Amino acid sequence: MQRLERLIRLTQRLIERPAAPVGLTQLSEVWGISKSTLSEDVALVRDTLAQAETGVIETFVGAQGGVRFHPRVPRAEAEAFLSDLAHRLSNEKRVLAGEFVYLSDILGDPDVLDMVGRLVSSRFRSDGINVVVTIETKGITLAAAVARYLHVPVAIVRRDQRVTEGASVTTHYVSGSAKRIQTMSLSKRLIPKEARALIVDDFMRAGATARAVRELLGEFEAEVVGTAVFMSTAEPARKMVDSYVSLLQIHLLSENQIDIRPCFSER
Amino acid sequence: MQRLERLIRLTQRLIERPAAPVGLTQLSEVWGISKSTLSEDVALVRDTLAQAETGVIETFVGAQGGVRFHPRVPRAEAEAFLSDLAHRLSNEKRVLAGEFVYLSDILGDPDVLDMVGRLVSSRFRSDGINVVVTIETKGITLAAAVARYLHVPVAIVRRDQRVTEGASVTTHYVSGSAKRIQTMSLSKRLIPKEARALIVDDFMRAGATARAVRELLGEFEAEVVGTAVFMSTAEPARKMVDSYVSLLQIHLLSENQIDIRPCFSER
Repeated sequence: MQRLERLIRLTQRLIERPAAPVGLTQLSEVWGISKSTLSEDVALVRDTLAQAETGVIETFVGAQGGVRFHPRVPRAEAEAFLSDLAHRLSNEKRVLAGEFVYLSDILGDPDVLDMVGRLVSSRFRSDGINVVVTIETKGITLAAAVARYLHVPVAIVRRDQRVTEGASVTTHYVSGSAKRIQTMSLSKRLIPKEARALIVDDFMRAGATARAVRELLGEFEAEVVGTAVFMSTAEPARKMVDSYVSLLQIHLLSENQIDIRPCFSER
Repeated sequence: MQRLERLIRLTQRLIERPAAPVGLTQLSEVWGISKSTLSEDVALVRDTLAQAETGVIETFVGAQGGVRFHPRVPRAEAEAFLSDLAHRLSNEKRVLAGEFVYLSDILGDPDVLDMVGRLVSSRFRSDGINVVVTIETKGITLAAAVARYLHVPVAIVRRDQRVTEGASVTTHYVSGSAKRIQTMSLSKRLIPKEARALIVDDFMRAGATARAVRELLGEFEAEVVGTAVFMSTAEPARKMVDSYVSLLQIHLLSENQIDIRPCFSER
């Protein structure tokens, strides 16, 4: 294999499975080249992505030593994406009865999901997260996109108990908006021991659901490392969770007015 | 930019957004190279992926002319993946009350989701699909993975009516297993005009749910191009849908026996 071909295949290997380890010893044997030659190729890919600001190649040592790729979104591109999205969403046709915003199309858009996956994962990639947790239904596509870029499983909290989930832990909470008692249930096999969880959801108003998921995860002795939502409301400013990342924020929402803005709330 | 760097960046551009068009005219301008030079680079990437059997670079012409990447899974790798998965699943500990199989961990596994996305999308990539449809909850992660590789939106059929879905079409059907009347509801804005839909779900026994989704899509004048499920049962052999793709099949399932096999059922 010539160097050009090797660089193309190496780039594919790294990029097609973000955050998944690529073992250099094994790869050098399969490709029949020395490890130092392969390391030079890796260095070139790393420097090229760093130069383009489109990714980070991380090296890790030990028996399972190797490299892995993490995406990076240049700040200008992230801002353009969120501004454009906020503009698309700030449309009266999206206002639903009860002052909800219609998001279902956006939450199924492959480009939106991919960019949300990149943006959120890159904020949490150094936090040792080993599971992404969401609550059905609308947060699932977002959570799966983030989990893909962190290369960790996604666990879905159900709003009911299902036989197909096996033994589960069930808790109850009072929802912020409807003031009703809600049930949530999480299959016991979905949360690893010493879990470090990232909660991902589509929407946060007061944060009651996020707090309830946090408490449910407490039953698993999981540590919640962070909470990320696609959209939150500016009011109430004080949420029921201490810190969270939100990509978009609703500043105004009434029957015929809607103002959604990009939000770079820090953790 | 040197040729090596250009090849790395071009490979990244193509692979990180499967099936999404990359415009060569625009790219040659941004990178300050001639279009013929860029075309030579594209040809090298195309030939390298073809040689490695890891992808197809498709060229399309017209005003929006350009190229796009489709993943390809070598047959041996696909067979090894499905055999290994069937082995993992053929474990008595996965048998749940009512002869269900515990799948929730597998349906959240990033490597499984990615491979299912590749396998299913590559069977349907020439069918002009413009939406992937699933029914909540367990099929969503699979559907999103397939939709990512087809670069089309995913639409989620809900089992109830929600204010957040806006105007919806609701239908009813009798479920195959529980013999109960079930409701399904799909937001009107989620299905494009002249839709060509691929139905993706986690499980098929008699096919009542898949047929009901098909009928619901008929209300949108959508054409259902295919149905793909993660797992199906060998019995009943005759399903309520004419044709479907299933990756795995249950041959035996009782309280203490389970036999699941890879399945390359044709469409």
